[in-house]
Amino acid sequence: MPLPKSIATVCLSGALPDKLEAAALVGFQGVEIFENDLLTYDGSPEEVGRMCRDLGLDVAIYQPFRDFEAMPEPQRRRNLDRAERKFDTMQALGTDLILVCSNTQPATLPEPERAAADLREMAERAAQRGLRVGYEALAWGKQVSLWRQAWDIVRLADHPALGLILDSFHSLSRGDDLAGLDRVPAEKLFFLQLADAPKLSMDVLSWSRHFRLFPGQGELPVAGFLRDILRAGYRGPVSLEIFNDEFRAAPVRRIARDALRSLILLDDAVRAEAPPETVPAQPLPAAPMLSGLEFVEFAVDEAAREQLGGFLGTLGFRRAGQHRSKAVELLRQGGVNLVLNSEPDSAAAERFEMFGPAVCAMALRVDDPARALARAQSLLSPAWQERVGEGEQRIPAIRAPDGTLIYLVQSGSDIWADDFHLLPGAAPAVPPLAGIDHVVQALAPGHLDGFVLFYRAVFGLEPEPVFELPDPFGIVRSRTLASPERSLRLPLNVSESRQTGTGRFVSAYAGAGVHHIAFAAPDAAALVAAAPDAPMLEIPENYYDDLAARFGLPDEELAALQVGHLLYDRDAQGGSFVHAYTHAFQDRFFFEVVERRGGYDQYGAPNAAVRMAAQARRQKK
Amino acid sequence: MPLPKSIATVCLSGALPDKLEAAALVGFQGVEIFENDLLTYDGSPEEVGRMCRDLGLDVAIYQPFRDFEAMPEPQRRRNLDRAERKFDTMQALGTDLILVCSNTQPATLPEPERAAADLREMAERAAQRGLRVGYEALAWGKQVSLWRQAWDIVRLADHPALGLILDSFHSLSRGDDLAGLDRVPAEKLFFLQLADAPKLSMDVLSWSRHFRLFPGQGELPVAGFLRDILRAGYRGPVSLEIFNDEFRAAPVRRIARDALRSLILLDDAVRAEAPPETVPAQPLPAAPMLSGLEFVEFAVDEAAREQLGGFLGTLGFRRAGQHRSKAVELLRQGGVNLVLNSEPDSAAAERFEMFGPAVCAMALRVDDPARALARAQSLLSPAWQERVGEGEQRIPAIRAPDGTLIYLVQSGSDIWADDFHLLPGAAPAVPPLAGIDHVVQALAPGHLDGFVLFYRAVFGLEPEPVFELPDPFGIVRSRTLASPERSLRLPLNVSESRQTGTGRFVSAYAGAGVHHIAFAAPDAAALVAAAPDAPMLEIPENYYDDLAARFGLPDEELAALQVGHLLYDRDAQGGSFVHAYTHAFQDRFFFEVVERRGGYDQYGAPNAAVRMAAQARRQKK
Repeated sequence: MPLPKSIATVCLSGALPDKLEAAALVGFQGVEIFENDLLTYDGSPEEVGRMCRDLGLDVAIYQPFRDFEAMPEPQRRRNLDRAERKFDTMQALGTDLILVCSNTQPATLPEPERAAADLREMAERAAQRGLRVGYEALAWGKQVSLWRQAWDIVRLADHPALGLILDSFHSLSRGDDLAGLDRVPAEKLFFLQLADAPKLSMDVLSWSRHFRLFPGQGELPVAGFLRDILRAGYRGPVSLEIFNDEFRAAPVRRIARDALRSLILLDDAVRAEAPPETVPAQPLPAAPMLSGLEFVEFAVDEAAREQLGGFLGTLGFRRAGQHRSKAVELLRQGGVNLVLNSEPDSAAAERFEMFGPAVCAMALRVDDPARALARAQSLLSPAWQERVGEGEQRIPAIRAPDGTLIYLVQSGSDIWADDFHLLPGAAPAVPPLAGIDHVVQALAPGHLDGFVLFYRAVFGLEPEPVFELPDPFGIVRSRTLASPERSLRLPLNVSESRQTGTGRFVSAYAGAGVHHIAFAAPDAAALVAAAPDAPMLEIPENYYDDLAARFGLPDEELAALQVGHLLYDRDAQGGSFVHAYTHAFQDRFFFEVVERRGGYDQYGAPNAAVRMAAQARRQKK
Repeated sequence: MPLPKSIATVCLSGALPDKLEAAALVGFQGVEIFENDLLTYDGSPEEVGRMCRDLGLDVAIYQPFRDFEAMPEPQRRRNLDRAERKFDTMQALGTDLILVCSNTQPATLPEPERAAADLREMAERAAQRGLRVGYEALAWGKQVSLWRQAWDIVRLADHPALGLILDSFHSLSRGDDLAGLDRVPAEKLFFLQLADAPKLSMDVLSWSRHFRLFPGQGELPVAGFLRDILRAGYRGPVSLEIFNDEFRAAPVRRIARDALRSLILLDDAVRAEAPPETVPAQPLPAAPMLSGLEFVEFAVDEAAREQLGGFLGTLGFRRAGQHRSKAVELLRQGGVNLVLNSEPDSAAAERFEMFGPAVCAMALRVDDPARALARAQSLLSPAWQERVGEGEQRIPAIRAPDGTLIYLVQSGSDIWADDFHLLPGAAPAVPPLAGIDHVVQALAPGHLDGFVLFYRAVFGLEPEPVFELPDPFGIVRSRTLASPERSLRLPLNVSESRQTGTGRFVSAYAGAGVHHIAFAAPDAAALVAAAPDAPMLEIPENYYDDLAARFGLPDEELAALQVGHLLYDRDAQGGSFVHAYTHAFQDRFFFEVVERRGGYDQYGAPNAAVRMAAQARRQKK
């Protein structure tokens, strides 16, 4: 049996009923009622408690109760009166536990004995009503900021209705750990809050209030933290408390689903070492072994199909197949398959209706499609079924958070012969492509963390650090997810600037998924040279002057780069990257040809500003 | 003679020509060409140099040259080759100065002698072409991060073509100052960059790259820094180098004007103590002495005038005058004048056309309107003239950054009798208002810093720290500007969440200026009680339960608050604040009644979430 999963209402957007409904809908068993959500709501605590019970939600805790302990009189007495009022509220809500976080007031006395006496008094009053008090160290508490300090006070107070509350953010943000927790009696561990966060060098209060993330989205060792507390005997709910400005502004159900997905993944991450009674009976199906992209599919209409076919033809793509029953065409160049779908009444047609020509699906090669699908379903990504004709293949699929279909294709299988009339290939004039190197998606602001969690959880992709790319009109933030063996690379871009220039360019695709596709070429210069009609993006001469200065490239190599509008990058280990971009197709998406040499593992980020400025110039024209 | 004013192209949005044109248009004399702006531009350095000269701009410097000094071979030799290439670029651009910033590479040797030797070699090569090299300490340089370290190396190198470059951000962000700069010979001070910033606890690189501000917008002592360097004998350009994500995403001319405004204000701030030859011959006209708002004017049509008149009537406002020649009406309640303007073909009509009913003007009482106008004009805010009828008053006016008119009215004068038929006032049923306590404006994201600089510069208002107000769907950031004697208080709100709920509510006004007006009432409870028809915003009962717990208010006081839908706050000194809100008028703006007791100087921020949740509930209905 996994521990009950709970979420604090402060994580979610909207009014209190919206939050509760979303939490229940996705499958949480409990909630923390965040005080401000109650105060601003125009229903009584009794009504809120009833609403929770009707939704099948346990009110796990009421929180926070601030700035209570170790205050001088008359504040001390007033705080105890305040506690009594909150006990009334708890009883009306139907919860028996309140969270007291360590005092942040400058006036707090540096006397653990006073703090213990106050908490003991509060716990005694709580116990008279059958209630309990949990004490938590805030990372920025005035006298108490580490869990061991909080535990010393709880031990000193020595009251059965007083226990310890732990929060992964407060400990891990301070670089603290749970060593020594095994000496705390399990019955004194009253509650557990979990939060992840990116590693940021900023004051811990702002970091905590604005940038927390769900476990798996950030960089804190949350799984290890959970494992330690389970080993120490904790058996209560596992609850998320995430303060994040973007989450608070996002649709509530999407965030609630991300939240639960993060806990399901965490359950699995700790199962090997956690006590068996705390984890689900069945492990998650293992993440798929990936071997690249079998195809990428575009939603088009008849006209766009012709135009995109012509555009790709300049890079050597040829018509290689026609679907037996649908208006679906296969283009192929070397190891790259692109599908153009103009079938009416399909998911593709819907996509085209909304966004114009756009990528509507990607097919991943996986070692076991059924297992991959089962894992996705366990992680709250339901299966999706496209209409198929008689005798046609039924390829399992799920939807990415933006609605893009992700097909799960058996590695090594031939998916084409059954459904397509395949056409004999003419020898191409352009050297063959090796495959798809990476697919870049443009996300609307506020979507990055959800995408990261989705790909990390469902496919076991590993997120790389965030890059910031300056463009002529703002900043693009980029984070790449890649499979361990690098057969799948998915950079995700978010533009902070919505209204102008490249920001608009990026955000035009936001929600429409893919923004550009990079093809792997064994020799990028040779490919571009053999494709004289390919509409390559012009790169200014100044760029090559600087390249010469930076890398001391031989003149002939520099000239070859310049004539092909090729960009160049080099890593610290001497690996290098040669790449060129096409113009955008109908201002919607574009293609890149890339060549990796000597183990280069990046994406040419130093050249992004050059690319974006060139694109902005073209848009202006 | 003030020092020449320059700006780095990186401060501004767009392609290089857009940046240069904007800088020239607002009146800068020089520019720093930021390398990346040149590299991504598709014109040659010669063309860029010509463009600058045609615009009357001096190319003050080419920058930055990174990671140069104290590297082991073969990087050392390569860096010198790189420098030669950049000298070519400088000569093509037509500038004689390059900025070398201190090396950030882990491989940099910790040997000042090596750094000095390398810089000496570079300077010698530069000198052969008539060029110069300036060395600057980056705050995050590997071996050199303080200006004194950079100066030690420059002194050691001892070459006439090598000098020191100072940047206020790099020094002040480290808490450093310019003590000892008087021992640096003036001819060794090659260039000066100025930047302000908010005080943020985060790593200095991110802080510098994203959050710099123009002087006067932030919290660093930039004026003192400038004063010290002028006293040390610096006589070169004063140049702005501001990395700010919002500025990079904003219209380029607006930001260029803000930039120059900041330097004009800075010139004036240092004049008293700086050498006379470095400051303008004429001081800026002094900031006006303010004594509150004479009126606020709304753009309406006939229908909205009737409705708004009725809405305000419930708070005791009565029709007090009719304009002699225009469709303009005066409403009055105690010390508050509100003007409803439905005149066709006026600035108000334009405003109404764009935003519906909206505040279109505010009239400030100033000690000397002519001087206030002259100051505004000196600070790049031109005078604005509304059409007036014969014999009517001509009130000087300027426009706020969002186009709102700001009239400058002589304190103590009667502006009404000439232009209005005044109507006899009936004794009002509602106790009289004392005046306008504050006017809150909702800004579009990215506009806050520009507004702060405008009000600070033109009217001498003082910015208070930024508040963050959580609302049900995101975060509202709020910063208040107030006159020293508090007769004018202007909170500015920016919503980070654009698309949902209160975010939409706030951003609906963005650009339309005023979002709510708070009236000062000697007794807020009495006023609300005497205005039973006023459409006051309902506050949930839970709020009062919490108030009781937090402040221990007597039951009768609590009951009085609750019956009047009044909110309550108390400051650390025991001052308190009682306030209530009306519903929004046509979902556009609303009014507040506020009572300050015992020197309370805030705006009830802890209650903002309660207000916003209540508004969101109403919008949903």
